[in-house]
Amino acid sequence: MADHTTPASDQLAAVTLNDDVSASTVKKHQFSDRVLIRSIVSRPDGGAGLAGQRVRVGGWVKTGREQGKGSFAFLEVNDGSCPANLQVIVDAAVADLAQLVQTGTSVSVEGLLKNPPEGTKQRVELRVEKVIDVGTVDPAKYPIPKTKLTLEFLRDRIHFRPRTNTISAVARIRNALAFATHTFFQEHGFLYVHTPIVTTSDCEGAGEMFQVTTLINEAERVEKELIKNPDPPSDKAEGIPRKDGKIDYGQDFFGRQAFLTVSGQLQVETYACAVSNVYTFGPTFRAENSHTCRHLAEFWMVEPEIAFADLKDDMNCAETYVKFMCHWLLDKCLDDMEFMAKNYDKTCIDRLRMVASTPFERISYTEAVELLLVAVKKEGKKFEKAVEWGTDLASEHERYLTEVKFQKPVIVYNYPKGIKAFYMRVNDDLNTVAAMDVLVPKVGELIGGSQREERIDIIKDRILEMGLPLEPYEWYLDLRRFGTVKHCGFGLGFERMILFATGIDNIRDVIPFPRYPGRADL
Amino acid sequence: MADHTTPASDQLAAVTLNDDVSASTVKKHQFSDRVLIRSIVSRPDGGAGLAGQRVRVGGWVKTGREQGKGSFAFLEVNDGSCPANLQVIVDAAVADLAQLVQTGTSVSVEGLLKNPPEGTKQRVELRVEKVIDVGTVDPAKYPIPKTKLTLEFLRDRIHFRPRTNTISAVARIRNALAFATHTFFQEHGFLYVHTPIVTTSDCEGAGEMFQVTTLINEAERVEKELIKNPDPPSDKAEGIPRKDGKIDYGQDFFGRQAFLTVSGQLQVETYACAVSNVYTFGPTFRAENSHTCRHLAEFWMVEPEIAFADLKDDMNCAETYVKFMCHWLLDKCLDDMEFMAKNYDKTCIDRLRMVASTPFERISYTEAVELLLVAVKKEGKKFEKAVEWGTDLASEHERYLTEVKFQKPVIVYNYPKGIKAFYMRVNDDLNTVAAMDVLVPKVGELIGGSQREERIDIIKDRILEMGLPLEPYEWYLDLRRFGTVKHCGFGLGFERMILFATGIDNIRDVIPFPRYPGRADL
Repeated sequence: MADHTTPASDQLAAVTLNDDVSASTVKKHQFSDRVLIRSIVSRPDGGAGLAGQRVRVGGWVKTGREQGKGSFAFLEVNDGSCPANLQVIVDAAVADLAQLVQTGTSVSVEGLLKNPPEGTKQRVELRVEKVIDVGTVDPAKYPIPKTKLTLEFLRDRIHFRPRTNTISAVARIRNALAFATHTFFQEHGFLYVHTPIVTTSDCEGAGEMFQVTTLINEAERVEKELIKNPDPPSDKAEGIPRKDGKIDYGQDFFGRQAFLTVSGQLQVETYACAVSNVYTFGPTFRAENSHTCRHLAEFWMVEPEIAFADLKDDMNCAETYVKFMCHWLLDKCLDDMEFMAKNYDKTCIDRLRMVASTPFERISYTEAVELLLVAVKKEGKKFEKAVEWGTDLASEHERYLTEVKFQKPVIVYNYPKGIKAFYMRVNDDLNTVAAMDVLVPKVGELIGGSQREERIDIIKDRILEMGLPLEPYEWYLDLRRFGTVKHCGFGLGFERMILFATGIDNIRDVIPFPRYPGRADL
Repeated sequence: MADHTTPASDQLAAVTLNDDVSASTVKKHQFSDRVLIRSIVSRPDGGAGLAGQRVRVGGWVKTGREQGKGSFAFLEVNDGSCPANLQVIVDAAVADLAQLVQTGTSVSVEGLLKNPPEGTKQRVELRVEKVIDVGTVDPAKYPIPKTKLTLEFLRDRIHFRPRTNTISAVARIRNALAFATHTFFQEHGFLYVHTPIVTTSDCEGAGEMFQVTTLINEAERVEKELIKNPDPPSDKAEGIPRKDGKIDYGQDFFGRQAFLTVSGQLQVETYACAVSNVYTFGPTFRAENSHTCRHLAEFWMVEPEIAFADLKDDMNCAETYVKFMCHWLLDKCLDDMEFMAKNYDKTCIDRLRMVASTPFERISYTEAVELLLVAVKKEGKKFEKAVEWGTDLASEHERYLTEVKFQKPVIVYNYPKGIKAFYMRVNDDLNTVAAMDVLVPKVGELIGGSQREERIDIIKDRILEMGLPLEPYEWYLDLRRFGTVKHCGFGLGFERMILFATGIDNIRDVIPFPRYPGRADL
């Protein structure tokens, strides 16, 4: 085993993926002697200026071939740090070439960077002097061969799919959007608040929620004991404990019924009403039996909440945030976006540019309905769902507004009270609430938000109007009883943002481990 | 309602909490006309240079008093953007002063910044010209009065506790550590991977896990229907569905038994074995019946995973990351750290400085045991748990090593195989595995990590040796069958890091919504 006593402080010179790559030496990976392939091939000179440098790289062979009657192997090696591969040339003297050339083989190698012969597309290649490690692949058994594979096929090989060009590009884009999100809110003075996954509140008052419990495990444990020892005290014999005919959640882990959260909004409001600018970014859950390409049982949401702010501030924040993410991708992930444009959606880069640079249209719900009715009556547009003031807009209506009518993002605000949640602020007209949705081409609704009802009497009436009990919301009402503030917020479906950016059609392909009815692999 | 048509692009000049604050004008909040109090009082000149500027602020009254026979009110207003308050002076002509001075009242006000009279501690104060909004408080009913409150008392008022100086400081420190974490890994070329919360794997093979289910809800729904309509098909009558005497998880939402994750490690390894440098940062769960001040049922973990890397690289990464977080807090949160030093732990700032600047000691487990035995035999040190090669170190042993023996962070590596998980790499001595723990003063173990066993035959033997079945791990074994790589990683308990930084004693006070046996408020 190697010497373990070298302190890390010797290696403190940080190396970043986004570093200046114009230096004449290749940057070292911080924690080992390995360098990232990106730090070689993603330089403006394609790595040409690094010729003569000795480096160690690690990665997986994308394609390999033997040449010169088995005297050399040419390997295209990728380490996930960027979409481009590094060409690696290995001499038969240093390794078993027949093994190395198999797709999926891992290699850790050291050698000299060289300028390839004129006329080849690479700007730099690695001539290997030492093979450090090889992880072989039996091509007859490898589950993801070199041939083109469908995304559906890959969903059944979830542990291997990040090794493909598509899923690794999606991983880099998802990572970039996540860090863009944190950077945006941090730069604007928002605190990241970790709202709970396990909750005893139901944000929407009607969600299909997963239950979190130890009762079943405990009942099964007792049952197993009963089999071993069939003379138990009788109160343990009945499986899940009951009291007065109902399940006795008093005996569950949290002493009451608990669920997976459907939104962190209500909880994060307790922080907004104390430290003013906050956001949460984490997984949320729906136990809906949806088998569509737009729904997951576990998905990620970004939910900022702003105190001393109204609906206009909310829309300003949403628009600025979406534009920021588009700029970020164009700036940091253009190589991955070019891969997506070439393979999945020709328009995806243009779409990012348009959204980044175009002011969003802002229309009231009432105006939106009028525009849709004009489309139906004067332009002969046919919708499956009828357009009528007082009902929610369907996806087809939303996409008509953003894709056809305005051809840019549209914010629709002031929705009818009857179709929106109890916590949205009632407008002076008493018929609408201060809600807003951000619609974008390709996915329709990307963001939903509102100004929150800060007036204690009105919000109590709204809860009762919806047929909900007051008692579970007493803590939420307390925020209005003591030092109440105007505040607002919104939720962005993170996977929708990735679909919008990449042009991929199925939400199951933009999250690492998709969960949906009947499936939770790994 | 205000005009909604102003596009956000008019307001694109970003304002950040960490901005240069030496400019002569106060920076605007980006999404509204409000400015953050931090942008006034946290300037090097304490805000003095901003006199004459007109600003709007919002916040909550920490303390207030009327003066000059009720002609003025002096309010200490805090908006959560920093620990310091802004002194706000309101004339009786513009507001009801008796309301304003109550602790907890929210105010949104506009006025002129002025230099206060000589001899006062403030460098700037706000003379209010216009009161925009007030959220009143009835002091007789307000659940968190101005008097000093215990952290225990506040745990029963979870929705109000972020309004206290302590919990808001903890929120800012937690936020800073979270963003430091993302910044660190992003700067070093790691991709953030969202590992799943709902899982069908059990990482440790023995965890106390929460179950995620819709079976109980469904059974209750059926029962309710039975009451309405007492003539059902008989297969619906039995509550939770069973098959061959056992619960039929085939009818549960995911078609099999599902749990809350105890660690994202195994899943994130599928990405490390494809894109090389990755990390996950999210909530993890244990259904342990622990009522200590160090355990939670829901807590956050940071778990990096590095391909083409060994245990030494792992230790280097861990040490560099912990140092980075310490520097970050000293750099960005010194005002909050000073609050903690004054009120909770005099040594907390010195501890951060020491860890940030001192190389970590690195000793093998065998050396650690020898040192502990010397302490017992030669120095008369008494431990509750006996020291013996082959058993795990107890917290008292760990704290002796880091706090007494070395008085700095210690990394202990190469633990006995018998006390560690199956996935840790067996060393050449065949008795130890390439595991490492990072021990720090105040909390003991902060990080646990290892090089992973990449050799297919050895890891299969280890799984069987532990009495575990192979079948559930086939996907994990596949990573070793096809293109295996040396890789390593570690887990950092995020709440432990906050306890270490702040000096707070109870883990329930450093997470916004603590979950533990019998409690899951909100």
